[in-house]
Amino acid sequence: MAKNIAGLQEVFSTFLAAMETGREPRSLYAPADYIMTLGGKRLRPLLTLMGCELFGRPAEDALPAAMAVEIFHNFSLVHDDIMDQAPLRRGMPTVHEKYGLNAGILSGDVMLIDAYRSLCRCPADASLARLMERFNRMAAEVCEGQALDMEFERRNDVTLPEYLRMIEQKTAALIGAGLALGAVIAGASPEEEYHIDAFGRHIGIAFQIQDDLLDTFGDPDKFGKKTGGDIVQNKKTFLLLKALEVADEKSRAALLSWYEKAEGDESEKIEEVKSIFQTLRIPEQTEAAKASFQRTAFEHLRAINTPDDRKAPIIEFSDWLFQRDV
Amino acid sequence: MAKNIAGLQEVFSTFLAAMETGREPRSLYAPADYIMTLGGKRLRPLLTLMGCELFGRPAEDALPAAMAVEIFHNFSLVHDDIMDQAPLRRGMPTVHEKYGLNAGILSGDVMLIDAYRSLCRCPADASLARLMERFNRMAAEVCEGQALDMEFERRNDVTLPEYLRMIEQKTAALIGAGLALGAVIAGASPEEEYHIDAFGRHIGIAFQIQDDLLDTFGDPDKFGKKTGGDIVQNKKTFLLLKALEVADEKSRAALLSWYEKAEGDESEKIEEVKSIFQTLRIPEQTEAAKASFQRTAFEHLRAINTPDDRKAPIIEFSDWLFQRDV
Repeated sequence: MAKNIAGLQEVFSTFLAAMETGREPRSLYAPADYIMTLGGKRLRPLLTLMGCELFGRPAEDALPAAMAVEIFHNFSLVHDDIMDQAPLRRGMPTVHEKYGLNAGILSGDVMLIDAYRSLCRCPADASLARLMERFNRMAAEVCEGQALDMEFERRNDVTLPEYLRMIEQKTAALIGAGLALGAVIAGASPEEEYHIDAFGRHIGIAFQIQDDLLDTFGDPDKFGKKTGGDIVQNKKTFLLLKALEVADEKSRAALLSWYEKAEGDESEKIEEVKSIFQTLRIPEQTEAAKASFQRTAFEHLRAINTPDDRKAPIIEFSDWLFQRDV
Repeated sequence: MAKNIAGLQEVFSTFLAAMETGREPRSLYAPADYIMTLGGKRLRPLLTLMGCELFGRPAEDALPAAMAVEIFHNFSLVHDDIMDQAPLRRGMPTVHEKYGLNAGILSGDVMLIDAYRSLCRCPADASLARLMERFNRMAAEVCEGQALDMEFERRNDVTLPEYLRMIEQKTAALIGAGLALGAVIAGASPEEEYHIDAFGRHIGIAFQIQDDLLDTFGDPDKFGKKTGGDIVQNKKTFLLLKALEVADEKSRAALLSWYEKAEGDESEKIEEVKSIFQTLRIPEQTEAAKASFQRTAFEHLRAINTPDDRKAPIIEFSDWLFQRDV
């Protein structure tokens, strides 16, 4: 009997609470302990547990792999926060703010190594070669996505396909790999592994597109933060790139002039850009793109031949991800 | 028939020359290509090839593991150079100097992942679990050693045993693991793996002690750089920590006062500190410590029951490492 989301969360949080902390030297491991205990939603490790139960093996057997996914995610946050010069993470000082640049770099490194160490604690009957292959490919992709994201900040000719490729690597690859690692532990065939990975990737892309939409058009009460941040920061989002793709000359010129302004009234800029987006029917087209990625995701899930009750937690999880209304 | 050093260097350099370069995105992989092609002595991968031939398997089968060792070493240089704010590496700009801080961090990350990918290309009959376990432990140790090294810069109560532990982790662990990975590929027993690892560790510590000695007392013509750099930079070396351990009150006070001086004539400081070291017979005691670690290393090598001709390249290599006269 496959566990539901709450059951899986319980399994993971118990495992996480038992994780060794306090290792020496503290200058290396305290920053790692700090970020790992800062919280976060722990969504990614759940995927690994779900991927395992989908193919009939108890979630408990996938715990070391789930932990590898969670440690890897936190490693990437530590280094990304340095690169993005972010002062806050989950409402608290980022690692490099709290401990300094060098600690941020080095503790991030040892977390990446820790992720591999955790992966090596998977059950001996699971193919370590397959797990490593899957994990390595994902890890390289996440770095590639981060590199592209930084490149895009400096470029003014980013296309929508390039953007989709970037978010697939930076964000969605880990969602896919999270599920796929669980599947490999449960002995899924390469074809099944491919489909669950592709499900996760498409869900991940759809989620990032939704995130872009909510940042501009979300209900601030439900979204949990002020909208318009991406516009103020001139971020190349799905909305902007779609708008530049479909805009007539006049709207295009208007958009570009707003995005070239370094100063001025923020709320005026937000309202004007939103208005151009609405005229161009960008919210509708963004919704349509999101729905299209979701549909493809579910085609991949349907291609997997396991009982429906085993798929239930994954569908529940996906519904939950997308329930946040615009 | 085990290959000699020159033969092994040929095998590795051919493999290295065939390594894939030019991967996309360039912003991520160009810095990695740059550091990997900057040269360096490629000593560490040779150890892996030697460790493999010692136990009767051709060096060629250890090439992916040797490459993992070389990539890991270069990863650690890229991140260490950021932490040490080093402008030059092998006479050329460091990665972060040439490509910026963010590229240094992210390209270093992907190199660490690449090292794991290379390790996974080892022959299928070698135990990936054992290789990973060995590699992971070494990788964590190198981070721990670097953390301690940075801690020591801020501390004034570092002891000689602490220093030895730091150089074991930061430098010698990779020498030991380099050999041990080759041994694992050749199917060495855990006991044999332990001894070859311990041989490498002790040689590595002896080598670092020699390096400290040469930096202060080396013949500049043979040593290849100006001596006295460690003294000018107030580095806590074996020499200084040994001196502080054995000094009477007067010498101790004199040493500390030199090391507290921020300004003044560099060559006077070098000469005065060297003179105190000589009075305390530090060069002799340092030589004795180095010789002791070398002896222990060779006891571990002798404990390995393989034909003498298979040990010949390792002995040749070790002689070569230590032939640089004071």
